[in-house]
Amino acid sequence: MKKELSLLDQYEKEFAVLGGITNLLNYDRATIMPPEAIEQRADHIAYVSKQFYGKSTSGEFKGIIRKLYSNKGKLSTPNRVRVEKYHKMLRRIEKIPLEHVDTFSRLVTKSSQAWEQAKARNNFKLFAPYLQKLVEMRQEEARLIDGKKHPYDVLLDEFEEGMTVDKLKKVFGELKAGLLMIFDKLKDRKAAVIHHKAFSRIGEEEVAKDIVLRILGDRRVVLGESVHPFSDPISPDDIRLTTAYKDHEPLFSYTSTSHESGHALYELNFDSKYRESILYAAPSIGLHESQSKFWEDHIMKHSSWWSFYYPFFKKAHGLRADRKRFMSHLNEVKASPIRIEADEVTYPLHVIIRFELEVALMEGSLKVKDLPKAWNEKYKDYLGIDPKSDAEGCLQDTHWSLGYFGYFPTYAIGVMYAASLFKQLERDHKSLGKDLGKGDLRYVKKWLRENVHKHGSTLLAGEIVKKATGKELGCDDFLSYLREKYL
Amino acid sequence: MKKELSLLDQYEKEFAVLGGITNLLNYDRATIMPPEAIEQRADHIAYVSKQFYGKSTSGEFKGIIRKLYSNKGKLSTPNRVRVEKYHKMLRRIEKIPLEHVDTFSRLVTKSSQAWEQAKARNNFKLFAPYLQKLVEMRQEEARLIDGKKHPYDVLLDEFEEGMTVDKLKKVFGELKAGLLMIFDKLKDRKAAVIHHKAFSRIGEEEVAKDIVLRILGDRRVVLGESVHPFSDPISPDDIRLTTAYKDHEPLFSYTSTSHESGHALYELNFDSKYRESILYAAPSIGLHESQSKFWEDHIMKHSSWWSFYYPFFKKAHGLRADRKRFMSHLNEVKASPIRIEADEVTYPLHVIIRFELEVALMEGSLKVKDLPKAWNEKYKDYLGIDPKSDAEGCLQDTHWSLGYFGYFPTYAIGVMYAASLFKQLERDHKSLGKDLGKGDLRYVKKWLRENVHKHGSTLLAGEIVKKATGKELGCDDFLSYLREKYL
Repeated sequence: MKKELSLLDQYEKEFAVLGGITNLLNYDRATIMPPEAIEQRADHIAYVSKQFYGKSTSGEFKGIIRKLYSNKGKLSTPNRVRVEKYHKMLRRIEKIPLEHVDTFSRLVTKSSQAWEQAKARNNFKLFAPYLQKLVEMRQEEARLIDGKKHPYDVLLDEFEEGMTVDKLKKVFGELKAGLLMIFDKLKDRKAAVIHHKAFSRIGEEEVAKDIVLRILGDRRVVLGESVHPFSDPISPDDIRLTTAYKDHEPLFSYTSTSHESGHALYELNFDSKYRESILYAAPSIGLHESQSKFWEDHIMKHSSWWSFYYPFFKKAHGLRADRKRFMSHLNEVKASPIRIEADEVTYPLHVIIRFELEVALMEGSLKVKDLPKAWNEKYKDYLGIDPKSDAEGCLQDTHWSLGYFGYFPTYAIGVMYAASLFKQLERDHKSLGKDLGKGDLRYVKKWLRENVHKHGSTLLAGEIVKKATGKELGCDDFLSYLREKYL
Repeated sequence: MKKELSLLDQYEKEFAVLGGITNLLNYDRATIMPPEAIEQRADHIAYVSKQFYGKSTSGEFKGIIRKLYSNKGKLSTPNRVRVEKYHKMLRRIEKIPLEHVDTFSRLVTKSSQAWEQAKARNNFKLFAPYLQKLVEMRQEEARLIDGKKHPYDVLLDEFEEGMTVDKLKKVFGELKAGLLMIFDKLKDRKAAVIHHKAFSRIGEEEVAKDIVLRILGDRRVVLGESVHPFSDPISPDDIRLTTAYKDHEPLFSYTSTSHESGHALYELNFDSKYRESILYAAPSIGLHESQSKFWEDHIMKHSSWWSFYYPFFKKAHGLRADRKRFMSHLNEVKASPIRIEADEVTYPLHVIIRFELEVALMEGSLKVKDLPKAWNEKYKDYLGIDPKSDAEGCLQDTHWSLGYFGYFPTYAIGVMYAASLFKQLERDHKSLGKDLGKGDLRYVKKWLRENVHKHGSTLLAGEIVKKATGKELGCDDFLSYLREKYL
């Protein structure tokens, strides 16, 4: 098997190159590319996708994987996992014609541009034809891959291996009930009000840079600015993340920078022996998201952290409020129409709404043209609010414009994993509060690297969390964390 | 020939994609990429180069070009020029093995990084082994392409089609003599001194952005920052340029932004019917350079321009000096060790020094290890100065680190073309001074588009300039421009 493994190494090196180029083309598009260049950028990205498709479905590569797969009993565990992942990927990929891949790649580059315009002009109709086409192409894809399964299950598996609509309906059902109960008790509680003009834009930028340094402290990271914050690796030594500064939400850049830094830290910490292999990645989007929520909610909103950080933050912004008032403002629980501006309590409800809607779109029980209405009804129903416009309604998120259906649930999975991991960290490190009170994040980073990051994709997400905490995916730790903090 | 022309279109589309991706990978490297990621970036760029090489030397492509070339009498002029260019390119490319191309691409990515470090640490030895290898590989390349010609002629032809060492020695000989005579009369003249601390960094940035808007006024342009300013197209609707802010040279960002904007304007103005073809480019680097020098020297240092622009500039910087003092400072003629900080009079002497040295390196009459000494001797000889260090001596320019030998002469060619074009513009537009005095650049831009830019590569550089001015390449217009302005 030595020859095949060495050939696999070469293929993986090329896949890493193609992945890095694609991520750079996207990062550049979202941060500094002139919008006029979108057609050519679509060509750039489609070209690279096509190369990847051609290479990963070549006769030689399939032969290598087939040979290794049929001898997998003789392989080391990491090599066996690598081979199984490619074997599964090939089974999916083989069923989708190159033309479909190419058309889809171009569609996505244009539809994400159309979404940006539709959102900016608050006009769902500018985006609807693209969304319609995206839904149809994803339905077709699911049918091609496995016509017997629920189409949503097929798509979901790409982001969260092994997850199904049925499992999610169960755990989201419990989560929803628990959250609505907590939210009901909190919704009339008044938080301190600090007007957005009391914050400073220069302060926001100073804090964002500082947070990146504190969480990542690494020269291998670049912070940019984009409409919708994200993070992506260009190569193991080049991780990009973005933030956004919003005039009326001065805390958004703080929370989103913390969030994306959590993702970036995960990307920096995989065991280096898996570099340039499929194992040098998170095993699921949900586990990746647990790392961003871990930092955003559990660390960077921790009361001990703020006893350390508030003097700097206050000075950077030129704030007058004392820490108690600020913390009350920061931890306000209030139904908002926007997911990424939501507090910890209502956030998963935003996710569950999207999950329910996209399942319906995929099943065909909801039409694209009826999406805005269905969206607004659910917001009224779960959160008691009426979105003022589609821009702050169903156009708010970029995911569907990128063709991601089955991605949203990973946000709520991440929230639940994060809470379980944080509970375990508290058990393992009694002086955590003391550390945070001194701004000392070393133990936290070390614990995450040892218990989560280093594994890369050698284990499934559920296996990593079980190994670290002894628990399966569930909402108990998260709900008890919220009750403790808020009730 | 219809089928072959349509296939050629498809190939050119792919070449445009590969060229755009390569330019983005380079732009990103020079502006925001973490230096730690250089190895992976070398992989990215090498991968794309290899794709280009494979595609442009494929049997199918060669067949298409051969067929079209042998029927070129039946083609329209633009199509014939296209085909001739590819035919020539293929003749060169076929003679260089893929392994050489791949090794060279990786070498260049690393050597340009090594150069940056060597320059930062003022240590020529960090760069010397890379330079040695670059010289050897270029010598080998010249030998492979045409062993009978002077190796420098072979390399030169890639940047300035049809130019030779002999022709350059002649015209540079006249230019050198003329410049030394003018410089001799000016070197004791004292210019007004404005201390660098009188300028403001924020003012520099404001002015740089303003200059980009005034010259380009186009959303299809992105201004970045890099050690050595440059400009490159990513696609016809996405032109990137950079500037640099130097603590002790506050006017550098003004002149370099004017310079790069001149390049970028050229890239924006090719006739759109040549999009995504080899004709959608300048026919030579010298002509491209004429466009940057045109703006940098003839427009943005014009006395009428400053009668309009100085109030804004003065306010942006918070300067106290009046316009007369400022103009005296701006137009100071003084031998400097740094090419890109040189005045109009001494600038071409910097270029001629490099030309003489690189010819000697290619001929083998100068060894890499002796380069710093030879460099310093020529600076003493022509300009009467002793460079303080290699960082401000032979390490100052990026070109050799990118493997460019035969590129430097194009700077002096550009200076001569620019002067001839400007003389013609003055003849064609009597109220030029009046326009500039109002900040009105419309006629200038229109004139350049009509007389230079729109042609793309359908004509050779010399043909375009002859068509516009009636003259061949020569130093008369440039020398008389200098005499008029300074003596």
